[in-house]
Amino acid sequence: MPSREDVHYFGAGPAPLPTAVLEEASKVLLNYNDSGIGITEISHRSADANAILAHTQSGLRQLLDIPESDGPDGYQILFLQGGGSGEFSAVVYHMVSIWVARKAKELGGDEDKLREEVKKMKLDYLVTGSWSLKASQEAARLAGAEHVNIVTDSRKHRDGKFGTIASPDTYTPTADTDATALTYYCDNETVDGVEFQAAPDGANLVADMSSNFLSRPVDVRKHAAIFGGAQKNIGTTGITIAIVSNRILPPHTPMADAGLLRKLGLPVGPVVLDWPTIAKNNSLYNTLPIFDVWIAGQVMQKLLDASTGSPRIATQQSESDRKAATLYAELDGSDAYHVVPDNSVRSRMNLCFRVRGGDAEAEKAFLKGAESRGLLGLKGHRSVGGIRCSNYNAVPVSAVEKLAKYMKEFAEGKI
Amino acid sequence: MPSREDVHYFGAGPAPLPTAVLEEASKVLLNYNDSGIGITEISHRSADANAILAHTQSGLRQLLDIPESDGPDGYQILFLQGGGSGEFSAVVYHMVSIWVARKAKELGGDEDKLREEVKKMKLDYLVTGSWSLKASQEAARLAGAEHVNIVTDSRKHRDGKFGTIASPDTYTPTADTDATALTYYCDNETVDGVEFQAAPDGANLVADMSSNFLSRPVDVRKHAAIFGGAQKNIGTTGITIAIVSNRILPPHTPMADAGLLRKLGLPVGPVVLDWPTIAKNNSLYNTLPIFDVWIAGQVMQKLLDASTGSPRIATQQSESDRKAATLYAELDGSDAYHVVPDNSVRSRMNLCFRVRGGDAEAEKAFLKGAESRGLLGLKGHRSVGGIRCSNYNAVPVSAVEKLAKYMKEFAEGKI
Repeated sequence: MPSREDVHYFGAGPAPLPTAVLEEASKVLLNYNDSGIGITEISHRSADANAILAHTQSGLRQLLDIPESDGPDGYQILFLQGGGSGEFSAVVYHMVSIWVARKAKELGGDEDKLREEVKKMKLDYLVTGSWSLKASQEAARLAGAEHVNIVTDSRKHRDGKFGTIASPDTYTPTADTDATALTYYCDNETVDGVEFQAAPDGANLVADMSSNFLSRPVDVRKHAAIFGGAQKNIGTTGITIAIVSNRILPPHTPMADAGLLRKLGLPVGPVVLDWPTIAKNNSLYNTLPIFDVWIAGQVMQKLLDASTGSPRIATQQSESDRKAATLYAELDGSDAYHVVPDNSVRSRMNLCFRVRGGDAEAEKAFLKGAESRGLLGLKGHRSVGGIRCSNYNAVPVSAVEKLAKYMKEFAEGKI
Repeated sequence: MPSREDVHYFGAGPAPLPTAVLEEASKVLLNYNDSGIGITEISHRSADANAILAHTQSGLRQLLDIPESDGPDGYQILFLQGGGSGEFSAVVYHMVSIWVARKAKELGGDEDKLREEVKKMKLDYLVTGSWSLKASQEAARLAGAEHVNIVTDSRKHRDGKFGTIASPDTYTPTADTDATALTYYCDNETVDGVEFQAAPDGANLVADMSSNFLSRPVDVRKHAAIFGGAQKNIGTTGITIAIVSNRILPPHTPMADAGLLRKLGLPVGPVVLDWPTIAKNNSLYNTLPIFDVWIAGQVMQKLLDASTGSPRIATQQSESDRKAATLYAELDGSDAYHVVPDNSVRSRMNLCFRVRGGDAEAEKAFLKGAESRGLLGLKGHRSVGGIRCSNYNAVPVSAVEKLAKYMKEFAEGKI
């Protein structure tokens, strides 16, 4: 019957959380802030809940240097439900709506002309792994495949499999940036173990950062929106964070009304995924899981407290880089392993590798040996097989060192 | 600094949870099932998570006598995110989609005829309070106001305010039931304190039971679907439960494809709210907050363990009825109070009343006196004012008795 100290968990998400945060969580579940009421029981409209919300927003703002302003240069921090997959859809509903509204305004309400213009509208997707592929498929389902332009498909550069990010000079973005409702990319692909080294270029840039949020600085100002499910680097499953530029929110941009969108054969999204509604209500349009927001706030406070550099996230970045380097050094140092994705785009968060050329028995033995040492959650995603080690923020250095040591011993046949 | 024992919380949701469940929750947060990993950290695809899911589904099935079968008479139990408000939209996307698919099939693909038929499609809404009003507004936004038929609007029967449910012989359902994509009602209205005494009639009946779930038996078989956010009688904010008839799910009914819906000017919903997708993946299409599912399962287990009657929910029903009767007796027994909604439709879950004719000072004094006795969360909804006492399942009899005693003393001027 292992304790938390006996186990090191490398699952791809939900991910481990700092034990200190969970210990505090177990107390506030029963009694929050000496109110006699537990944190899951308090009203989402209470002063306590509002303070939790403000604390978490403030933590994220400091860590990622998110501009605070009511003007067009500011960004809103929204909390939603539905995970990254929910935002795959939210992104399409919203970016299409503001594109249509802008065009309608330009054309002074001429609906025939608008209908012609809409035919040219494009949603640009960089498909570099399983999650961006899924997002592009949802866009095609919601808006119609004729509106989706695949800027790059990594599989075409690598024998039909993900594991690379092609050079930008091979990209095929929509030539007319005025027709580009969004440019979408997934910053880190958990299934395939590839990570962008820097944000790509593109009109109305939107990023999925679910799996590498808070692991390095982000050029927020380059993006129209950034989103991510909380259950990897940030907290618990249940909330999704969206950082949305005021430029793409009312009153700085008009929204198309639902009737017009339907008339144009374009989709209308549910109110709970509607960014302007969520922004206007400071994420309290409907009941928000405040416990999950609190957990995220505690995790962020821990990062801030540990922060010694500028930008504030630099300390965590160093640790993430160092942990990944330790593991990759072990994998590169032995013929027993090979890392699946290309060297230049290896993820610091999800390390995907094969054991002895992908030999099924060897990989089983690797997993079994790991398990007997309390090193868990290392099986690769069912769609790609092999081994995957997720190196999220709350995986301690000691866990990584123990895994590296095990890798070495296994490679040397000592297991 | 009050402890849980010093405080009785009557908020409208999130609601109190049994202390025993929260005590157990505080342990599993750190180490679930002696795995060394906390419950928010385990994979939603792990054996432990699957067992939690099955346990909660089984509890609900037993409590509400939900038919289990792969055939058209069976019902699926789905867990989603986005709360009741998310389901306001999910209901419309889904019921419109299957209505269109059925019509398209009947018309053998004649799109012009289908376009004509769609003009007749109606979504029937019983508007008996703030939440069913909101749901009907979301339907009008998504599908177009021309498709929404208000079967009853309680305000027309009561000087423009909610607080009654008119007699069914005043209802104006769509005459052609073949044109009725759904009939929607909210079983209990938290803001206005009214509750249906029995499920109304209607084609393709859908019920919002967010605020009285698991407080009495439900005629599940009468419904196409029943849904509810978990944060009142069931558990924590973060999951929404939908009980969906196989009759309205593939393979028993066809679904319209997204392209056809767009062409007809009808809305296409996000994949995370798509009932068939969630059903097909046993609620694990994307990451599900397993902790919230576990909490709900523990609450249900507690109800089952306490159950002495048949149906299994009868014990809880007796307790809910008795607690409500205790409070209403106090309110009816004194001129100091008057209950806002009509006698015949008073909610057992949310008791809305005024003090001394709605005198602002008297109501403030009532709330202040209550607070000093640890009786919290009694302020009425901001849109209606007055006092609201929510009598959810986890509000203990002792809390109700203490509140009743306070009501008596206040009425007698002893405060």
